[in-house]
Amino acid sequence: MTASDIMPNRTLIAAAAARIAPYIRRTPVLRADLGGDAPVDLKLELLQHTGSFKPRGAFNRLLSTPPGAVGVIAASGGNHGAAVAYAARSLGFTAEIFVPTTTPAAKVARIASYGATVVQGGDSYADALQASHRRQAETGALEVHAYDHADVLAGQGTLGREFEQAAPDLTHILVAAGGGGLIGGIAAWYRGSVSVISVEPEGCPALHDALRAGQPVNAPAGGLAADSLGARQVGTLMFPIAQRFVSQAILVADDAILAAQRLLWDQFRLVVEPGGATAAAGLLSGQFRPPPNARVGIVVCGANTDPAKVVG
Amino acid sequence: MTASDIMPNRTLIAAAAARIAPYIRRTPVLRADLGGDAPVDLKLELLQHTGSFKPRGAFNRLLSTPPGAVGVIAASGGNHGAAVAYAARSLGFTAEIFVPTTTPAAKVARIASYGATVVQGGDSYADALQASHRRQAETGALEVHAYDHADVLAGQGTLGREFEQAAPDLTHILVAAGGGGLIGGIAAWYRGSVSVISVEPEGCPALHDALRAGQPVNAPAGGLAADSLGARQVGTLMFPIAQRFVSQAILVADDAILAAQRLLWDQFRLVVEPGGATAAAGLLSGQFRPPPNARVGIVVCGANTDPAKVVG
Repeated sequence: MTASDIMPNRTLIAAAAARIAPYIRRTPVLRADLGGDAPVDLKLELLQHTGSFKPRGAFNRLLSTPPGAVGVIAASGGNHGAAVAYAARSLGFTAEIFVPTTTPAAKVARIASYGATVVQGGDSYADALQASHRRQAETGALEVHAYDHADVLAGQGTLGREFEQAAPDLTHILVAAGGGGLIGGIAAWYRGSVSVISVEPEGCPALHDALRAGQPVNAPAGGLAADSLGARQVGTLMFPIAQRFVSQAILVADDAILAAQRLLWDQFRLVVEPGGATAAAGLLSGQFRPPPNARVGIVVCGANTDPAKVVG
Repeated sequence: MTASDIMPNRTLIAAAAARIAPYIRRTPVLRADLGGDAPVDLKLELLQHTGSFKPRGAFNRLLSTPPGAVGVIAASGGNHGAAVAYAARSLGFTAEIFVPTTTPAAKVARIASYGATVVQGGDSYADALQASHRRQAETGALEVHAYDHADVLAGQGTLGREFEQAAPDLTHILVAAGGGGLIGGIAAWYRGSVSVISVEPEGCPALHDALRAGQPVNAPAGGLAADSLGARQVGTLMFPIAQRFVSQAILVADDAILAAQRLLWDQFRLVVEPGGATAAAGLLSGQFRPPPNARVGIVVCGANTDPAKVVG
């Protein structure tokens, strides 16, 4: 099997969409004025079950599992863990979720609320991933990787399919990137028919650095959005997709992310986590400047933060 | 001119929709599982400018104003005032807004943020309305009534038109009622083609009591949602519409409203004010039981509250 055999494509993503449809929300799109020359379309994926896009990939992975698995295991900054816990409960699996100490209490509580066992330790997502690998070797549970698996990528790609159906006239789409599962899936859906632009915090530039280096490389994983975007490297499966179909990789300062969170609260009454507001920050900060006649879409991909940090 | 001349109808509402389209958001609809036999469609009107549906009526009123007016005046529990202030700023009018002492600080701040003069005094909306009438006699400003004006009703009716376009298969729609502007406009749009059901807090039963009495009557205006639904009487213009086209008027306890707010936060990460969650409480509390094969829509009509009160 070659890489292209498992690279998600429109057929695999459409199949994933049909598979997960009973379990996920088709999240709405809001056309809104963000102060530029033209309105933008906001894909309100923060309204998804568990407060992020992650159930798309988690359900697609678990629903594609061979018979016999009863337990699942995952490492996560928080949102993927909540999604795996939610999907596991929905489908009758037990779940064990490894998170680092940086994961906010609200996300730990949310994972536990779905009946999963939460193991918290280590400084980063990478530490939690290592710990989950050691545990998986003992239990034989099914590992659900947060981004570097074809079923997970295809599941996240269903968001691109929905966005295209709801807003077929887009020319540019801004997507936040961490490990790259979401942007990889979306770029695999559009295959260059719109410009997919990655937006990362300056403190977590894994995709930006990988595209510059020509391969996944270690990058810092800190700053305001580290609990959702703080992967040290992008996935090996998404990287060739990004090379072909991500047209631009921009970086934004933490201040710009916080300003985007505040704007989304003030003008829309949406509570958006730092990673969820990062794509919007790409436009609002001026780091991305749409060309004339562009129709811009923005994925607002996560809600899980303490509202007190947003209201300011 | 008879009452029917100014009762909003589909033609007037469609004209209002065209008039206000450049100024308002077409808010999205989310199909969601709320635990019943069938999914429900949530009209997420809390994403409207100023955090409630009120700009629809305010813009339609101001855009229908004869030339010459420069100042506007309104009384409000808060949301209407914010909408009038926002619309006035957008269209180049000055605005003076009267609110009672019960209006939450967040709503007062929001009104002021749009450049309006806020005058706070009196115990209830009725007191603020009286004060605004005295002031209007001095200044000659254009009064923008919160609900009892044909242009305001037609503006709010545009929400019904959008909901029908986005979810044409609905059989029942739950709408919160205070003075009745929103439900009056929506019922005037549907004209009985779906069952429009009013939901009010037990502490503010103005429409329930009016329908029972056969005419608008004074009712209590207290409880959790009084700042948005606490009108002493429903409007005289909406009442004949409600008699013909509101199929049922149900009441919910404040506890049920708070539970609905908590559920909308836990499962959707939406910050919804008590009046905005009242329609959902009608379904979630079991006070409204959909018949078999019903397709239920719910208007989530306001966001303006302190998130700390919702997160619990």
